[in-house]
Amino acid sequence: MASPLERREREKQELRGKILDAARELFVTHGYDAVTMRKVAEKIEYSPTAIYLHFKDKEALILELCHHDFRTFAEGFLEIARVADPIERLRKAGWEYLAFATQHPQHYRLMFMTPRPIVETPGEEANDPAQNAYVFLRAAIEEAIDAKRLRPGLTDAELLAQTSWATMHGVVSLEIAMGSEQGWVNWRPLEDRTRMVLEMILRGMVVDFTPEPPTKKKRR
Amino acid sequence: MASPLERREREKQELRGKILDAARELFVTHGYDAVTMRKVAEKIEYSPTAIYLHFKDKEALILELCHHDFRTFAEGFLEIARVADPIERLRKAGWEYLAFATQHPQHYRLMFMTPRPIVETPGEEANDPAQNAYVFLRAAIEEAIDAKRLRPGLTDAELLAQTSWATMHGVVSLEIAMGSEQGWVNWRPLEDRTRMVLEMILRGMVVDFTPEPPTKKKRR
Repeated sequence: MASPLERREREKQELRGKILDAARELFVTHGYDAVTMRKVAEKIEYSPTAIYLHFKDKEALILELCHHDFRTFAEGFLEIARVADPIERLRKAGWEYLAFATQHPQHYRLMFMTPRPIVETPGEEANDPAQNAYVFLRAAIEEAIDAKRLRPGLTDAELLAQTSWATMHGVVSLEIAMGSEQGWVNWRPLEDRTRMVLEMILRGMVVDFTPEPPTKKKRR
Repeated sequence: MASPLERREREKQELRGKILDAARELFVTHGYDAVTMRKVAEKIEYSPTAIYLHFKDKEALILELCHHDFRTFAEGFLEIARVADPIERLRKAGWEYLAFATQHPQHYRLMFMTPRPIVETPGEEANDPAQNAYVFLRAAIEEAIDAKRLRPGLTDAELLAQTSWATMHGVVSLEIAMGSEQGWVNWRPLEDRTRMVLEMILRGMVVDFTPEPPTKKKRR
């Protein structure tokens, strides 16, 4: 049985999670500037005082929210980090990126689609591939460059990381913003669009490109 | 000299343009649902009645706004339509896409980054490359397929149009949402990112790919 102290700690963590979820939804729906601590409190039916016990102000709240969401994001790549082949690692990272955005569209909107204050990454996270997905991506590309797997001339790992990221961001952010609702586009399935973007971008980068085996098609 | 009738018509059009600009900015900043006709009126310091003389309700306003912005967007591609080579046309369309998003970031956010009601394209625009940029893109890809310029297996023009679009959308929407502000990414210049995405995507698609001549580097 949980002791009163344990129970209180658990309740505290639950409320904290509720506050973060409410704030995330408000930020992505109404924009960062329009949201106040009072509105976050109203949304979860607590008093503003209860919110201030957890976060001293809106800036502290967005900071914690971003760190929380970026950590969740980076954790998804941990397993993939063990894939020995850097090209195969990049391909799997593309699918993991899609999975994260599909499962957490609100996180995704806050992180990459909503103008918000700059959030500095703490020093220990800034250069750790296990805590920072951008560093993970760049490291895989650096490894591919060192192993001479990329075409001659493709030597700027930073630029390659930013463009590979942008292509996947394009697929998932169009899906989140417009869904398959627009009558004027006969949307192909999201998985087919993802597969083709990954295939085109890898074919564009890699010297010894081989297409993804079709047996892996149904992955989720 | 303008007649009183001409002057009145000009003033009417100017007010209409002001209403559209104010509505666009409010929609992209606060989200479609949060904006009312009254807020649009307040922003331009007119009475709500004046707004209702131009648009019968918010739905009519967003409809006109979207048609206006999508027409402006499609017009940018008119000159490029005369480029004979379909691959070169696609490359130029990529640069034109960047130019539109850079010059009209609010238009771009409303069209492709803000959840909003479905706006049906009128019949005459739906299939006209001169009025619909998506149709323009798909037509260039169909032409490239027919001319056997794309790799074997790349036969679905709809899927290819959606993925090529997504890659360019990724570059420009990341720039609009995050700018170069984020301290944790050492951003390469937007033009370099655009060039690399275009180069990778075309290399991934085209049988007889040739890189863009470096002399064209400074285009804007």
